[in-house]
This record gives sequence, structure tokens and C-alpha cells, in this order.
Amino acid sequence: MSHHLDQAIRDCIAACNACATACAECFSHMAGKHSDNACPACCIDCAALCRLCADAMARHSPFANELCALCAKVCDWCAEQCGAHDMAHCQRCAEACRRCAEACRAMA
Amino acid sequence: MSHHLDQAIRDCIAACNACATACAECFSHMAGKHSDNACPACCIDCAALCRLCADAMARHSPFANELCALCAKVCDWCAEQCGAHDMAHCQRCAEACRRCAEACRAMA
Amino acid sequence: MSHHLDQAIRDCIAACNACATACAECFSHMAGKHSDNACPACCIDCAALCRLCADAMARHSPFANELCALCAKVCDWCAEQCGAHDMAHCQRCAEACRRCAEACRAMA
Amino acid sequence: MSHHLDQAIRDCIAACNACATACAECFSHMAGKHSDNACPACCIDCAALCRLCADAMARHSPFANELCALCAKVCDWCAEQCGAHDMAHCQRCAEACRRCAEACRAMA
Repeated sequence: MSHHLDQAIRDCIAACNACATACAECFSHMAGKHSDNACPACCIDCAALCRLCADAMARHSPFANELCALCAKVCDWCAEQCGAHDMAHCQRCAEACRRCAEACRAMA
Repeated sequence: MSHHLDQAIRDCIAACNACATACAECFSHMAGKHSDNACPACCIDCAALCRLCADAMARHSPFANELCALCAKVCDWCAEQCGAHDMAHCQRCAEACRRCAEACRAMA
Repeated sequence: MSHHLDQAIRDCIAACNACATACAECFSHMAGKHSDNACPACCIDCAALCRLCADAMARHSPFANELCALCAKVCDWCAEQCGAHDMAHCQRCAEACRRCAEACRAMA
Repeated sequence: MSHHLDQAIRDCIAACNACATACAECFSHMAGKHSDNACPACCIDCAALCRLCADAMARHSPFANELCALCAKVCDWCAEQCGAHDMAHCQRCAEACRRCAEACRAMA
């Protein structure tokens, strides 16, 4: 095992962190408001798994790949839910989810 | 409240994420090895609080400032512990902790 | 240091776990619905800190007491917010928060 | 959806919480000591996923079952690693992992 995280892992960690932040922001705007779909509950699921995933990759966990595979599915779902809303925070969240899903799928 | 996270919060979130990653890497190299101080247990404490802190800031939590104040103290401790070790991963961890402590203290 | 967690710590961990579960349940019922106060955003803050607190106590973290002190404050806030709502899940959440605040304050 | 968590979910949450605590205790005794296998790194992986899993079940997350399936695998691994060590904290951790793996597998 190398002593540094390689670039692909670093990029995926960055995508997970960006997604977790975008989900948290989206949540902060939507909490307490009426929603016609799973947003903002999906944002909490997604942010939690993104953070765990980033952590597992950085620790070279033997389960990092399986966590990435599951994270990609949660990101797909969150992108679909938040992407159906016009608000800027929801659209930014959906875009971050799509990028994270792609990065996690490549890692898985 | 603004609809975007301002730059100071974004910088502090970035410092927290970088610190969590450096702590996780340091932990992955030190776990299972003899240590003469609190490293790598401090890395687990520090990474967990950094991740919670980043999350709280992104959610505009009313407790984000108090979490940042406590995070700065944990980062100081982790920087001291890992900084006492010569290995590159420990030195990188200590440096990330010092930067995160500074960013969190400015936020608190 | 003893090789077992003592009973006071075990009780506080149990209170934190019960509070995190009650907050998560309350959140699941309130997400996507209109709210006139910080519920259910407070439930996310509270659950996250309760889980970190329980983890820190079980790891004998030197920062467990300070985390408990902050957790008690977040629990007070969440109890006040959810306690203002009549729904059973909100009332159960508020009650779990009050018990956790008491346990964490005794530990801090 | 019922307004209460059903008993099977409550039991699985309890098993996850007990496992997270046992892993954290095992970690606190092993951190900084030489180990001939993945303990105590496995304890950190296992505790993190157990906590996420408990949280996802309590929030009625649509991904709770998949998280439980993955959690069972991480528990199996951690039980194998810690179970190979004679120390009481490792044996208690392995036992909690086996119970949690069983509960999560039934839920998945």
C-alpha cells in the first residue's frame, strides 16, 4: 500500500465532501417547509453516507468500495428528488449528487 | 440569512474536511502499531469532530460556533500528539490540525 | 482506568442512544412538512451530537465531558422546539431530549 | 407506515448500538498497541457503520436494508479479527459483532 492517497481516491473524497456540503445546505433551506417529494430527508441520508464514504476511503478501509457503490445509489436518488425542485439550492444539491455518484461509481 | 454559505464558512469547512482526511490517513498507518502517545486515538476523536463541525456549519446550525470552539481544542491536542512523531503521515496530520484549529478558532 | 465502562457512563450512553433514535423518528415524520419552529432541523443537530457523544464516552475520549456539556445544551433546545408540538413523535422526542440533557449534564 | 418503529427494527437498532459501544471500548484499549491483525482498525469501520445503520433505520431510510446488509459483512469481519485476540475487551467486541451481524442480516 502506498503512503499517500492516490489521485482517484482524493478526487472521490472531494466529490463526497462537496456533496455532503450541498446536501446540508439544501436541507437547511428546506427543513420545516412543505415538500412534495423525499427532499430534504434524502439530503440527510446522502450527506451521512458521503461523509462515511470519504472517511472510509481516507482510512483505506477494505469496505470503501462497497460503501462507494451504495453511496452512488443514494446520490442518484437524492439527485432525482432535489433535481425535481426549481430552487437554486436544490439544483446545486442535485448537481453535486450527480458528480458524486459518478465519482463513487468509478471507485466501486 | 443568505442563500449561499459565505466564504469564511466555506474556508472553515474545507479546513475541517482536510483535517478529517489527514487524521484518517494518519490513523490508517498507525493502527495496530505501538505508539508512545495518544496518536492514533486522537486522530479518531479529531476526525469525528471535524466532520460534525463541517456538517453543522453547512446546515447553519445554531451550535456551529460552539462546535468550532471545541473542535479547535481537539485539533490542538491532535497536532501536539501527532506532531511529536517524525513519520510523514503524522507530520501532515499535525499540520492539517494546526490549520483547522486556526480556522475553527476564527469561526468560534 | 478501569477495563469496563462504569455504570454512570453506560447510563449516559444509553440516554444518548435513546435520544438519537427519538430524534431520528421525529425527523422522519416531520421532514417535508411545514413547521413553525426549528423542529425537525433541531432533531438532526441533536441526533448527530448524541451519537458522537456516545461514541466519545465509549472510547474514553478526553473530550467526552466537554461534548456532554454541549450535548446537554443541544438537547435542551431540541426539547423546547419539539416539546412545543402536540404530535406524539414530537412529544416522545422532547422527553428523550430532556432525559439525555440530564444525563449529559451529570457527566459533564 | 406505522407511527412507531416496530420491534424488529428496535431490536436491530439496539444490536447496532451495543456493537458500536463494544467496538469503541475495544478500540480504546487497543489504540497505540501492537496488533497482529486488523483490530482495532476494524472496530472503527464497524462502529461507524453500526451508528449510521441505527440512524438510517430510525429515520425509515429507504436504504436502511442495504446498509444493514453491508453492516452485517463488516461485523463478520470485525468479529473474526477481534475474536482472534484473547483479551476480554476483544472477546466482548467479537460477541457484540456476531449478534449485530445476525440482527442486521435478518433485517436486510
